[in-house]
Amino acid sequence: MTSWSRVKIPRVDDVKEIGGRSKSQLAAMSPAEFRGMVRRGEWTDLTVFACDGYVITNLAIVPKEYAFEFLLFCNRNPRPCPVLDVTEPGDPHPKLLAPEADVRTDLPKYRVYQDGKLIDEPTDITKYWRDDLVAFFIGCSLMIDFGLRGANVNYRMAGAFISKIPCIPAGRFHSDRMAVSCRVFKSSHDAVRAVQISSRLLAAHGYPVHIGDWASIGIRDFNEPEIAPRGELPPEPGEVAMFWGEGNTPQLAAMESKTPFLISHFPGYMFVGDQRIEELANL
Amino acid sequence: MTSWSRVKIPRVDDVKEIGGRSKSQLAAMSPAEFRGMVRRGEWTDLTVFACDGYVITNLAIVPKEYAFEFLLFCNRNPRPCPVLDVTEPGDPHPKLLAPEADVRTDLPKYRVYQDGKLIDEPTDITKYWRDDLVAFFIGCSLMIDFGLRGANVNYRMAGAFISKIPCIPAGRFHSDRMAVSCRVFKSSHDAVRAVQISSRLLAAHGYPVHIGDWASIGIRDFNEPEIAPRGELPPEPGEVAMFWGEGNTPQLAAMESKTPFLISHFPGYMFVGDQRIEELANL
Repeated sequence: MTSWSRVKIPRVDDVKEIGGRSKSQLAAMSPAEFRGMVRRGEWTDLTVFACDGYVITNLAIVPKEYAFEFLLFCNRNPRPCPVLDVTEPGDPHPKLLAPEADVRTDLPKYRVYQDGKLIDEPTDITKYWRDDLVAFFIGCSLMIDFGLRGANVNYRMAGAFISKIPCIPAGRFHSDRMAVSCRVFKSSHDAVRAVQISSRLLAAHGYPVHIGDWASIGIRDFNEPEIAPRGELPPEPGEVAMFWGEGNTPQLAAMESKTPFLISHFPGYMFVGDQRIEELANL
Repeated sequence: MTSWSRVKIPRVDDVKEIGGRSKSQLAAMSPAEFRGMVRRGEWTDLTVFACDGYVITNLAIVPKEYAFEFLLFCNRNPRPCPVLDVTEPGDPHPKLLAPEADVRTDLPKYRVYQDGKLIDEPTDITKYWRDDLVAFFIGCSLMIDFGLRGANVNYRMAGAFISKIPCIPAGRFHSDRMAVSCRVFKSSHDAVRAVQISSRLLAAHGYPVHIGDWASIGIRDFNEPEIAPRGELPPEPGEVAMFWGEGNTPQLAAMESKTPFLISHFPGYMFVGDQRIEELANL
């Protein structure tokens, strides 16, 4: 296994059914129902379409010895790393997002890294759990799309890239490669609305980190996103490409920094919290 | 010395001159000028009137061993504890707020606590500095007043109280007494504007934590604020009292939790950063 393998996440519009369930069935589930299904091993597919309107988070688990520096790294880089909950060492329950959830079983798929190398992609991490592990729940950029869709903003997703935007380091954590998600807006008006709407959603990465020219943030090929390709098409004249900080950044930093042990969510297989996205809106 | 002594901070309107300087001279100083004057020992008076429009922060310094839990406590309680910068252990320079500043000399007065007991109130903490200390710069609620004054909101400050609003604990840090600052608004319209304006300023504690009836948050006597009295008068009919999280909360938590060593700013003697308050506004 490579240390960073691309995962193709289907476009919302291209999917009718997934894992034997209709998209609308999945969307209508409550977070507790969905997590229960995942916990019982009945769901090992994408989270993307589940529990429409509820908080979705990425996951990064590090040993306690690294927890202060990792939290500081996230705090210093709030656009890619909005921290929504942090567990006490050894405690698998995210008290703010869902007190009865269990981080060891409630995500459909995980990635386990040792010394920066991917060693496993399990659907349950109970056997890897230790008393010194601290779990960080980091807002997922898909929540931005909930806000944009709800306001009829005209745009298309264009995958997630590894940019050359540097992050502010903290202790042993550093990365000169901020992960970014890209959206292409049909008009300047749509782009302005997207800045306004996403600025309300700091828990979902907030406002864009870049507008327009992607070469200047080190993206070489618009059609080849390193993280999540979606069948990209570069903007046409009049369209505006905008880039948001993306929740895989802390995993990238942990890998660049050769953290001895890290567990993350598998891209597309996130955690669902009990809050509505709008509950976390800052305005 | 008691462990929590009240400090009377004068009302802005009642002050013409302070420390031999006019209020307007102080207000016009740049943060670097003001900090230089403090560093050279030429200013050991209040920060309150200095550098109008610039970021003002409270300070809490704890040993590295407590840093993760303290940062987590702040993150879990962002209304009273908005963290604006955290130094690396032993590094006295706040890299985000003012890289050339020195936390050991650039505040006009400090408080030093050992085992929850106040042991010193020096104007320089160089002799207390250690390689394992981590400094937390926490937004000061006076920045809310900058926003309110700039929008001609009609209100009066009514001091800072110790409420019975519980904080969310983190590791060894806990407090059932959130510090709050109170403002009394002339009309409902002024109160609504204050919610809107302060919601933009998350770095300055953001939106109110309580509106109206103060008995229900455990404030017994409106005329006797525990932290900073200002000659209080309870609201008249039609006026609205609103309460914001206040930056002395983490010090209270550190004292309640009997942290073995803590240095804080002296109330009213804060740190000034290089950014304009508006640079940190979230909208």
